[in-house]
Amino acid sequence: MKMLINVAETVVADALRGMAAAHPELVVDVDHRVIVRRDAPVEGKVALISGGGSGHEPLHGGFVGPGMLSAACPGEVFTSPVPDQMARAAAAVDSGAGVLFIVKNYTGDVLNFDMAAELAEDEGIQVAKVLVNDDVAVTDSLYTAGRRGTGATLFVEKIAGAAADEGQPLGQVEAIGRQVNENSRSFGVALSACTTPAKGSPTFDLPPGELELGIGIHGEPGRERRAMMTSGEIADFSVGAILDDMTPRNPVLVLVNSMGGTPLLELYGFNAEVQRVLSERGVAVARTLVGNYVTSLDMAGASVTLCQVDEELLRLWDAPVKTPGLRWGM
Amino acid sequence: MKMLINVAETVVADALRGMAAAHPELVVDVDHRVIVRRDAPVEGKVALISGGGSGHEPLHGGFVGPGMLSAACPGEVFTSPVPDQMARAAAAVDSGAGVLFIVKNYTGDVLNFDMAAELAEDEGIQVAKVLVNDDVAVTDSLYTAGRRGTGATLFVEKIAGAAADEGQPLGQVEAIGRQVNENSRSFGVALSACTTPAKGSPTFDLPPGELELGIGIHGEPGRERRAMMTSGEIADFSVGAILDDMTPRNPVLVLVNSMGGTPLLELYGFNAEVQRVLSERGVAVARTLVGNYVTSLDMAGASVTLCQVDEELLRLWDAPVKTPGLRWGM
Repeated sequence: MKMLINVAETVVADALRGMAAAHPELVVDVDHRVIVRRDAPVEGKVALISGGGSGHEPLHGGFVGPGMLSAACPGEVFTSPVPDQMARAAAAVDSGAGVLFIVKNYTGDVLNFDMAAELAEDEGIQVAKVLVNDDVAVTDSLYTAGRRGTGATLFVEKIAGAAADEGQPLGQVEAIGRQVNENSRSFGVALSACTTPAKGSPTFDLPPGELELGIGIHGEPGRERRAMMTSGEIADFSVGAILDDMTPRNPVLVLVNSMGGTPLLELYGFNAEVQRVLSERGVAVARTLVGNYVTSLDMAGASVTLCQVDEELLRLWDAPVKTPGLRWGM
Repeated sequence: MKMLINVAETVVADALRGMAAAHPELVVDVDHRVIVRRDAPVEGKVALISGGGSGHEPLHGGFVGPGMLSAACPGEVFTSPVPDQMARAAAAVDSGAGVLFIVKNYTGDVLNFDMAAELAEDEGIQVAKVLVNDDVAVTDSLYTAGRRGTGATLFVEKIAGAAADEGQPLGQVEAIGRQVNENSRSFGVALSACTTPAKGSPTFDLPPGELELGIGIHGEPGRERRAMMTSGEIADFSVGAILDDMTPRNPVLVLVNSMGGTPLLELYGFNAEVQRVLSERGVAVARTLVGNYVTSLDMAGASVTLCQVDEELLRLWDAPVKTPGLRWGM
């Protein structure tokens, strides 16, 4: 597979240099792999830190900025960042109001964020954590004990970020982050495998004419393979899997997310089918976001995430945000 | 090739239904294929209308909204919209201040926008046109007499859109649009072909281990094929081709654009190399935009567009914009 890279070894560092050049409002420490809001620490504000393997962009670095993350720590491609990155980020962004770690549920990430929390607490920084585990496809997958963290990460980072930016205290921001995760469910499908720079060839084998239902964002196996389905059938299956696990009583935020290789033209068409299914199932939609948000390199496919919101969560969702990947109201 | 679609025949209509569901701030006429700002016509404001074949999303429908386009007319995939679409759009958005057609230089588009202008003028609507022809790769390519219109379309739509939104008259908005096009140059490369829904297989043959330098956004042939190059070599070649054709005296806006299939991780790394070349060549950079803006379905590859800006054009670039694909300041 051809890639627009120099050498596999420098892909993450090269991307960080390019990010620094494009976004002067961020401080990008290429050597230590930490991306920080330029105005951090913000006096009196709880700081939000996330991170994870690279290859899911704009997650997480593209979500750093007012109204969302204070800092992000990118690991190697599909590899957890190391504890020192998050400890360094915590020291850079803590104003004394404490930091919230937002952690996708993968074994390496959980372990390394835990170690980072200990390091930060040793420096007198108050740390709370929210674990994101929204993917209903499988439990105990490759890299995971329990459910995987996927699209809901965006909702947790945005909504908890809004709460932090309006000055809510650490315990409250943490509680909101947990509530958003508990209110969220995701399901993804792959039409093709992704190719990591290090491997240089597809990370798994998906035959022509088949798709993988319930794919993970690193290409981890899903529930089953089937002969290729239409967009409408995929929407029925994906939304059905989510609604088997959750019965929304409130309106939902809808994220229709490309895994990277699926064009926006197809993704909007898929959104039409997702909305049809939600309407048929009597689920009210508050807001819809369609695009590349939680990707898996060049994988073709898409995921659906639903997040139930009451008036307060919807208010926080609608609050202004200014990041490279998500921006409105400022 | 697997696609996330129902059937090829309904891809554009399906996408428009999905767009309507995601963006209540737009009025999407699925039957007549016109996307309009919900608040149009805006009293006293020149209206901007663009359009072209589908498959380049977010261009053009994703650029409809305050500060940018008043309406967009999507054709079938890689096929010009018909004159009736633009005439209908003109009738919907004209406030009496006239409309500006922004037309990418492809034979079908030029012809159909010309016919639409006649139809609109017959209805008493004042029409001006800006032709976008920024691609330095080739002249007289497949579908084109002269240079092709590619990435500069975004700059023309944004900057002329800002001028229109602050109430500048038609002649002035047209002049600004022409100036932006004249100040802009682009060059693109493909690492893979794209696949149209109608064909269902790659639209051209690009062997493993080769790339196409100077590719068009419909997969039209470029200048030459070579053995695969590094990101740094591609940046040297692409920016070099642009600077052979233009010597910027003012700072430039930089667009580093994915053709669709190239992940953001790679694209940011490519931006680092583009910025290196610009620095080596003594070109000052005012702003940089990195992402999927003028795509070619699932094609892997990227394009670079530079636009020289004086203080006034930079002010208009920085002005608030609120569209699905480009948004800041509101």
